[in-house]
Amino acid sequence: MSMRIEIICTGDEVLTGKIVNTNFSYMSQKLEDVGLSVQWETTVGDDRESLLRAFQLAGERADAVIVNGGLGPTVDDLSQDVAAQAAGVALVLNEEWLGRMEEFFRRRSRVMPPNNQKQAMLPATAELIDNPIGTACGFALDIGRARFFFTPGVPRELRRMLEAEIIPRLLAKSGLQPAIHLKRFHSYGLGESHVDALLRGVEELVPDGGVKLGFRAHYPQLETKLTVRGTDMEDVRRKLAPVEREVRKRLGNFILSEDDATLEGIVLGELASRLASLSIVETFTSGAIAARVAHLPGAERVFRRGLVARDLGEVCAAVGLDGAGGAGELTRETAEAVARAARRQTGATHALAVLIDLDAGADRIDLGGTICLAIATSLEAASRRSRILGGREWVRLGAVEMGLDCLRRYLQGLPVYERIDFEKA
Amino acid sequence: MSMRIEIICTGDEVLTGKIVNTNFSYMSQKLEDVGLSVQWETTVGDDRESLLRAFQLAGERADAVIVNGGLGPTVDDLSQDVAAQAAGVALVLNEEWLGRMEEFFRRRSRVMPPNNQKQAMLPATAELIDNPIGTACGFALDIGRARFFFTPGVPRELRRMLEAEIIPRLLAKSGLQPAIHLKRFHSYGLGESHVDALLRGVEELVPDGGVKLGFRAHYPQLETKLTVRGTDMEDVRRKLAPVEREVRKRLGNFILSEDDATLEGIVLGELASRLASLSIVETFTSGAIAARVAHLPGAERVFRRGLVARDLGEVCAAVGLDGAGGAGELTRETAEAVARAARRQTGATHALAVLIDLDAGADRIDLGGTICLAIATSLEAASRRSRILGGREWVRLGAVEMGLDCLRRYLQGLPVYERIDFEKA
Repeated sequence: MSMRIEIICTGDEVLTGKIVNTNFSYMSQKLEDVGLSVQWETTVGDDRESLLRAFQLAGERADAVIVNGGLGPTVDDLSQDVAAQAAGVALVLNEEWLGRMEEFFRRRSRVMPPNNQKQAMLPATAELIDNPIGTACGFALDIGRARFFFTPGVPRELRRMLEAEIIPRLLAKSGLQPAIHLKRFHSYGLGESHVDALLRGVEELVPDGGVKLGFRAHYPQLETKLTVRGTDMEDVRRKLAPVEREVRKRLGNFILSEDDATLEGIVLGELASRLASLSIVETFTSGAIAARVAHLPGAERVFRRGLVARDLGEVCAAVGLDGAGGAGELTRETAEAVARAARRQTGATHALAVLIDLDAGADRIDLGGTICLAIATSLEAASRRSRILGGREWVRLGAVEMGLDCLRRYLQGLPVYERIDFEKA
Repeated sequence: MSMRIEIICTGDEVLTGKIVNTNFSYMSQKLEDVGLSVQWETTVGDDRESLLRAFQLAGERADAVIVNGGLGPTVDDLSQDVAAQAAGVALVLNEEWLGRMEEFFRRRSRVMPPNNQKQAMLPATAELIDNPIGTACGFALDIGRARFFFTPGVPRELRRMLEAEIIPRLLAKSGLQPAIHLKRFHSYGLGESHVDALLRGVEELVPDGGVKLGFRAHYPQLETKLTVRGTDMEDVRRKLAPVEREVRKRLGNFILSEDDATLEGIVLGELASRLASLSIVETFTSGAIAARVAHLPGAERVFRRGLVARDLGEVCAAVGLDGAGGAGELTRETAEAVARAARRQTGATHALAVLIDLDAGADRIDLGGTICLAIATSLEAASRRSRILGGREWVRLGAVEMGLDCLRRYLQGLPVYERIDFEKA
């Protein structure tokens, strides 16, 4: 029987919808990634009675409960107080944390305001959980039959505490094998069910069930996740090796990056490593392609120039092509001519042109766009033509990704054209 | 005593964090906007036992419960079935909805797949709630002491059903005055506490408490909301008039749009109405300003050209300015020269240049950027210089908004420079 985990999110801003509850989706995904699952989530406001009832109910049902928020210095931060009440113990001053907070303010040349002392008042039975980057300490204690873990609402403090302190405690409590690794592959162009079919059976390459396959789709990209569990990291690496080899083989050119690497980061890295420079020409994507790359650290040495225009004639005029190139009609040849001219004009080693002919009429889910894109260097030009159906934003997002991914393929010596699932004949 | 409302969100994709629960924040905000409040939210997966327990608990505590999701045609869509069980009634085929679904498929020249029939199986005591744009009907029934409202998980179907069908039923049940209106003002440059202070007392302009003030901050913009309640819409209009006049007076030039209008839409409208055209030059914002405007419907007639470069020398070269203009040093005068040259070069009536000098070093929360922006026409140039502290993304987002808002101010005949709260000396 697996461990039952619940999450309780607190705070009026979350309950009233003023802020979207990304802390919850983050926590739940992180737990899934290590093979743990959340069974129930509750959101309540900064209200003593609701908090107490939520703690009691979860304490009756769950083995472990993560509570998020309510650890701040103001009067509407009630988590410590209600936790003590639910556990039937007193609140006591934690001298260790008080000292840490005073030090925190001293290092910033500030005096600790008196109301921050409240953040060092913990239930008598609480185990302190470190927060190295904020004044809200975490803590753990038992309420009912469950172990409760209290975490700060500030996202970066939560993230650090969950990953460094709470997940290891949950894994120890779960009895699952302690060594775990999450391997991620990012792809563009294949839908989730297609990738699922392509990867059928890869989990079975490791006979003991230590590898679990999962997906997270965020159009236009898809994330393929392998969770690998073992007795130690050496065991994990041994299990992962044949599976990741197989995933790379089956998804092939469609893998655009792995783990924390991004498509735009890969493109920038490929260009930087050959001391190359890039200019971009866009129409309906309207600057969204440049906006993915040109602001990144290091891009100031690579990104040469971006040009945006909605009219193909204006594009041609801007890069110094006269109408003879066939302005007015959008073809692969036009895209190649534009990319070549933009490269020449700006002196960049590489140019990417993504030109779009959007269907006429009002926005609708079966609107479409024809995309002609080209990549030019001093030696050659590569291009593709695609048609995407699905509303203005869908076409626009798809074209941004297609442009960057084709550039990635070109720079990695892969074919710029391979049929994708989002494409219509 | 106000009505107690709970929301139950269902589905493995939400519970595991694969998708962020924006349906919940949307529903909660919509209810807040009409003066209703959610007291408790529960998320459970596609699991019969959890759903039943969640329905029972909410049925013991609440007056009204909105359940979202689980109305689809597949086996893991359990809401009707578990609702019937919780209410202690049978599931029966609703002939009316079956006919509507068959018609739905007929109009799309398709035959209804057999498993869709499941969507017309409703608890015997259920009141059908119309879904004019999908095959999942909503329904209402009593479980315990609460009225339950079941809604589809598809966001646009949920939105339509909540606004057209469920909110009116909740308002009738609440006994609140039935006529209600939400008036919204969008501003840039003033923080929430500043606007709160500026608007102190505006609610009291209507003595009966029929006007409620609220905020929603999403940097860089702030939304100021007035919820007005009355006996009928005439009464609401009468109450709103003096308050909205006062809000416009106190926030003045900082109001960039009202209700559903957006900053980029206002800018586009101002330009289109005078048959004007726009070119944009950007550096660290990297195309993000153009990407806000140039893709909009109608922008193809207004947007002339966008230029992105990270290097000021490259910007000057691209617009045909030689180094004599002072390239290398970023000043208001440089921004004006760039805007003038870009306007001339592209033949647009208006040009906006937003040039940024980003502090050196790694990203950190006290990084800063110096922004020089200018707007040029054939007759004149207006400009401002500002310094924003707060990390790469904060500076970038702030500069995008500042550029568009200054253009809005210019086009509306307002001063381009007014000190904002995000600015540092």
